[in-house]
Amino acid sequence: MGWAIALHGGAGDIPLSLPPSSSQSQHPALDVVELVVRELENIPHFNAGKGSVLTTQGTVEMEACIIDGTKRCGAVSGLTTVVNPISLARLVMEKTPHIYLAFDGAEAFAREQGVETVDSSHFITPENVERLKQAKEANRVQIDYTQPLHKDEKKETPEADGDSKLGTVGCVAVDSLGNLASATSTGGLVNKMVGRIGDTPIIGAGTYANSLCAVSATGKGEAIIRGTVARDVAAVMEFKYVSLKEAAAYVVEEGTPKGNVGLVAVSATGEVTMPFNTNGMFRACATEDGYSEIGIWPSVQN
Amino acid sequence: MGWAIALHGGAGDIPLSLPPSSSQSQHPALDVVELVVRELENIPHFNAGKGSVLTTQGTVEMEACIIDGTKRCGAVSGLTTVVNPISLARLVMEKTPHIYLAFDGAEAFAREQGVETVDSSHFITPENVERLKQAKEANRVQIDYTQPLHKDEKKETPEADGDSKLGTVGCVAVDSLGNLASATSTGGLVNKMVGRIGDTPIIGAGTYANSLCAVSATGKGEAIIRGTVARDVAAVMEFKYVSLKEAAAYVVEEGTPKGNVGLVAVSATGEVTMPFNTNGMFRACATEDGYSEIGIWPSVQN
Repeated sequence: MGWAIALHGGAGDIPLSLPPSSSQSQHPALDVVELVVRELENIPHFNAGKGSVLTTQGTVEMEACIIDGTKRCGAVSGLTTVVNPISLARLVMEKTPHIYLAFDGAEAFAREQGVETVDSSHFITPENVERLKQAKEANRVQIDYTQPLHKDEKKETPEADGDSKLGTVGCVAVDSLGNLASATSTGGLVNKMVGRIGDTPIIGAGTYANSLCAVSATGKGEAIIRGTVARDVAAVMEFKYVSLKEAAAYVVEEGTPKGNVGLVAVSATGEVTMPFNTNGMFRACATEDGYSEIGIWPSVQN
Repeated sequence: MGWAIALHGGAGDIPLSLPPSSSQSQHPALDVVELVVRELENIPHFNAGKGSVLTTQGTVEMEACIIDGTKRCGAVSGLTTVVNPISLARLVMEKTPHIYLAFDGAEAFAREQGVETVDSSHFITPENVERLKQAKEANRVQIDYTQPLHKDEKKETPEADGDSKLGTVGCVAVDSLGNLASATSTGGLVNKMVGRIGDTPIIGAGTYANSLCAVSATGKGEAIIRGTVARDVAAVMEFKYVSLKEAAAYVVEEGTPKGNVGLVAVSATGEVTMPFNTNGMFRACATEDGYSEIGIWPSVQN
């Protein structure tokens, strides 16, 4: 049994540079996924922490989730001032009797715990101001929630679709003791309604781990929620007795509509897989036996 | 194929009286579950809508979720003034491009949609003021989130356990056309932290439906989230090819710790099941072929 790590990142014209320590860490898996996601939250090119996309009102509402292979877990939504949402999610896990805190209550908890907070303007980049402007111009029907649902299908235009996949970040890891963990963090969807919660903080949708595997998903949040994507990868392993790679491929190919989802996953035995049914996914992985992969577009063997 | 309906309700010394129309409705399943849950939200003896239990600050934060067999779904959390949270969840499903709205954004959406709202004091009953007082006296460790997690195990005392199961309401139905739907509504956990989100609004945890079945769970929210209980019932059916009854029994007996969960579920073919691993669950069901059951404690055949 060896360690393995995989992570996914955001869209945008940026080179993907892994934190140098991430593929050689001797930390427990739970610490590794938290530390990697913290780094990604601090890079303004990703849609998480600084760099989060904006709501229809031009504000930031960040969410994050962390879980280990024993299903200890924590999640947060609606953060406006917390520099590292993933670390607040871990504090919810460790310091409260609950799993999930949101909005004002989560912000109050952040202050009680003394985590680093900043003015909300810290998170807003010029690029995201422009993205919001373009999203409002290009697909205003996306937030025209006075229209019935069938109108929403119109928003599946290339423009809207591109925006919707802007880079949630996530990391999964198994350490050399077989401990599993998953962490995901996001600013959500460009031009989202204020108060909108996506798949990232939902245990079983964007983020999941149990004794078999750890999974972090990215893509169109509503499709990932409907597909219970992260839990389904583990459930297919558990109930159909297949490998991680087969389970993840099944969920991505059969469980969610094409163009909606990507995920990274590791198993307790050190398998890694990073399937997606979108055009591309920023991703990287490494394993103890020396295998590594960094990619954006489908690889040849996919 | 016949219709079937099942619902679960709250703990407390009350007779369970079904809305008269609920077992003879000719409405589509989605309307049925919404209407039944609305009725239960309006009865102050249940922990949903009027009668919701109180946060540690003595406030009400309600949440609800609705989903049909095509996985169209809507969810809300952190409501403070909306008389019928379940109907707002349905509006999120039908009138927005999102699935889940929470706190201020959900309240703003409620006002835009013109649903009935009242002052938050409307929801607070003297019984719940007393419950909060007792919860604070009896198990203050439950909210002492400055302590590490292992201290939380102390809250698994009979007192705390009793409070934690106070009655979320839920209803599942399949109509004579085979349409499935599930709806769940709750005030959450007595003495919960402000901002705490439980299992009810989480697709796959407290509420789920797909083409095979519809499920609504109740019990200890954090255990239900970890167990992805509602999705797991459907996943066991889907991946292990067993009946609804077998799948639900497996999830309740094997998937979640004893004392934590109950659920009601119907299948597309009209099966009904209402298993629980707690001492009791308020519950009722009826099917087109004339079977009906109303119970609190385990029945003989259980």
